[in-house]
Amino acid sequence: MRKILIIGAGKSSSYLIKYLLDKSESERLQIIIGDLNIENAKKLVSNHKNASVKHLDVFDASSRTEAIKTSDIVISMLPARFHIEAAKDCINYGKHMVTASYVSKEMQELDEDAKAKNLVFMNEIGVDPGIDHMSAMQVIDQIRDKGGKMILFESFTGGLVAPESDSNLWNYKFTWNPRNVVTAGQGGAAKFLQEKQFKYIPYNRLFRRTEFLEIDGFGRFEAYANRDSLKYQHVYGLDHVKTLYRGTMRRVGFSRAWNVFVQLGMTDDGYTIDDSENMSYRDFVNAFLPYSPTDSVELKFRHALKIDQDDIVWDKFLELDIFSTTKKVALQKATPAQILQKILMDSWTLNADDKDMIVMYHKFGYELNGKQHQIDSTMVALGDDQTYTAMAKTVGLPVAIAALDILNGKIKTPGVQIPITKEVYAPILEELKEYGIKFTEKEVPYLGYNPLNI
Amino acid sequence: MRKILIIGAGKSSSYLIKYLLDKSESERLQIIIGDLNIENAKKLVSNHKNASVKHLDVFDASSRTEAIKTSDIVISMLPARFHIEAAKDCINYGKHMVTASYVSKEMQELDEDAKAKNLVFMNEIGVDPGIDHMSAMQVIDQIRDKGGKMILFESFTGGLVAPESDSNLWNYKFTWNPRNVVTAGQGGAAKFLQEKQFKYIPYNRLFRRTEFLEIDGFGRFEAYANRDSLKYQHVYGLDHVKTLYRGTMRRVGFSRAWNVFVQLGMTDDGYTIDDSENMSYRDFVNAFLPYSPTDSVELKFRHALKIDQDDIVWDKFLELDIFSTTKKVALQKATPAQILQKILMDSWTLNADDKDMIVMYHKFGYELNGKQHQIDSTMVALGDDQTYTAMAKTVGLPVAIAALDILNGKIKTPGVQIPITKEVYAPILEELKEYGIKFTEKEVPYLGYNPLNI
Repeated sequence: MRKILIIGAGKSSSYLIKYLLDKSESERLQIIIGDLNIENAKKLVSNHKNASVKHLDVFDASSRTEAIKTSDIVISMLPARFHIEAAKDCINYGKHMVTASYVSKEMQELDEDAKAKNLVFMNEIGVDPGIDHMSAMQVIDQIRDKGGKMILFESFTGGLVAPESDSNLWNYKFTWNPRNVVTAGQGGAAKFLQEKQFKYIPYNRLFRRTEFLEIDGFGRFEAYANRDSLKYQHVYGLDHVKTLYRGTMRRVGFSRAWNVFVQLGMTDDGYTIDDSENMSYRDFVNAFLPYSPTDSVELKFRHALKIDQDDIVWDKFLELDIFSTTKKVALQKATPAQILQKILMDSWTLNADDKDMIVMYHKFGYELNGKQHQIDSTMVALGDDQTYTAMAKTVGLPVAIAALDILNGKIKTPGVQIPITKEVYAPILEELKEYGIKFTEKEVPYLGYNPLNI
Repeated sequence: MRKILIIGAGKSSSYLIKYLLDKSESERLQIIIGDLNIENAKKLVSNHKNASVKHLDVFDASSRTEAIKTSDIVISMLPARFHIEAAKDCINYGKHMVTASYVSKEMQELDEDAKAKNLVFMNEIGVDPGIDHMSAMQVIDQIRDKGGKMILFESFTGGLVAPESDSNLWNYKFTWNPRNVVTAGQGGAAKFLQEKQFKYIPYNRLFRRTEFLEIDGFGRFEAYANRDSLKYQHVYGLDHVKTLYRGTMRRVGFSRAWNVFVQLGMTDDGYTIDDSENMSYRDFVNAFLPYSPTDSVELKFRHALKIDQDDIVWDKFLELDIFSTTKKVALQKATPAQILQKILMDSWTLNADDKDMIVMYHKFGYELNGKQHQIDSTMVALGDDQTYTAMAKTVGLPVAIAALDILNGKIKTPGVQIPITKEVYAPILEELKEYGIKFTEKEVPYLGYNPLNI
């Protein structure tokens, strides 16, 4: 039996564990799951004979090294900042490692050691980052193989609610960390390339500079720019493209309404509101509007944001009940972002039978034989229920497949890496299709941002 | 002869030095000015027999302690972060100290030592902070002395160009550090109290939430909120007021136009623009607007900010020549704020014969014998030329007067302090009148923010 150690069994590990257990007989796998809280892990393995669950504190060196020493490969599903001690043990004891996290500076520093010991340290192999890397590089490599030259790459991902569960006016529910949704886009201007020009969008304009995207069978979406669209420019070999843009997808209308919270300052996570504990939702909204002894909070809100009486965006705010005098914030020393998150969780928390959805959209512009072409590639993954979510599927399956491919010697180039080589992405993308994670490509006219070529 | 050591002889020290030299015979004063660069000091003292100028590096312990040891009082006109070493020497050698800077944590920690040695460490005795403290506390104390109860305090200061030099469409020129003007209001939401309600304004709304103020003979001004209006609430004894607001004054229309730069992200000092060196002003503006092969930067700018064709705000941008294709940024790796500052300095730098102006406006609301009252108090100081500016006058004179009052035992309560007691403010405000720095008070109806008392 080959031993796979999974450290951390949170929300995104359901499919990972299921995949490995389903293959445990044919592939002779023993799955050991270590976590601080073993309840979720126990539920996920449900007494499978090839699984064991143990209490593991990644900061307790002796139990951690003991678990790593006796395994053949280590998968860390912990938050990124907790990987490094396990990663050092993997170097010491000669074990491969897989994570779905961004490569940290500390992780990158292990590259030479990993190569020296012939170990694969695979990172960024979830959905975003992960499936986005693989699906993009596959098309980019195909374009290059036939002699094409990339001139445009745009890539968009969204974690949304499945159409059948899409039951509110925002067309949005929290399918992942709500806090990240409330503070999305903060921390600096978004930067990208459009037709060789660097463009910058400050936070307060981000949600008004969206563009639309259409996915066959799923309708229209919109996207706002990620903070650094140029992060993978060099890694993907796109140093000479004209346009490079990465964004986050929402349903149409979300961003325009969300922008109202941004404008009022209700997404700020940098200071605490006085007496937040005893505020009503209405008091909270009113704290961002001028005092008036007579005018209603509603009219001040409409006036501040120039929301006409017949603007349908208004219903979105009513749906959230943000003008309620009876609902209390009931959070001590809370930031505006924390209070807004609480208000949104009243409305945007998934019901027990709700399903989630992951959508991805890539645009590839290229020149071939003097002509310009474009391929649009889309993927939609739907969750089965609230354990086997689309998020868990798209994060967990690539991690699981990569781990098995490493064990079986299909992926063998050593070093700290992300899944951008054919050796890695080809078998994984192929196998993901069996689980319904597949990209639909279509040729479209290349328009770029200069359709008339003026 | 009593020896006064002045450390730092920058822009704001002209009146300070003139005042002390003018009194040097009658008051038997020897003025020693120490600075890293002694050119400006030499010009200001012009061989006065009671003055000497020496090279002084405040970080060089031996020359610093030598200068402090042999003086009777030390005035530090350096930036606030450079006071502390001199302050410690003053404690060690038993010298009084005066600065125009905010009391730092390190300065505050010297309070016990100063009291033990019977030393006056006077801070925040320039214009803002300084004259604002003194003029406010004088009226507040008068109101309390007659049995009144404070219910509202608002205070506004502005450093502007004098009416006779007010020759551009922004009614603004740089009379002080341009960098602070470009980044004003950044770093967190503005917070204040209105009718017992805490109010918060995010940076992106700050310049659209102004209010108007009128000063007899000088016309209309507007004011935007300072970041923390509540800083002196307790110190001023205003814990139970309904309204507490501090703001910065500009001429009417400035803030609405400035807001355009804020909205586009052109005041951001947190990242650098790619290839800023070779950009034209027009390229810089275009970096914050969507790409278009055909549409002009002008129309994209108007569209982004919803500026109608007949909106007079437009002329303000034309005046700055921000759409120029020929003027180059010519700054390497510059932040948006640095580039904007350069563009503004083309237009907003004082001419040789321009004069500056300091304006201050206080509102005091109080209850007395069951009735509500309000006193409005205003002050305007005009500069004489570009050496003897209104800024140098209003910063330097209170510092100079305080230093002499301390030497003469008129101000004697020891400790690290700011000028909020009658012992300090009464003689200083009285003497400032001789120099034209005087407040005009008038009774106005108390309206608060609830004029109809609904």
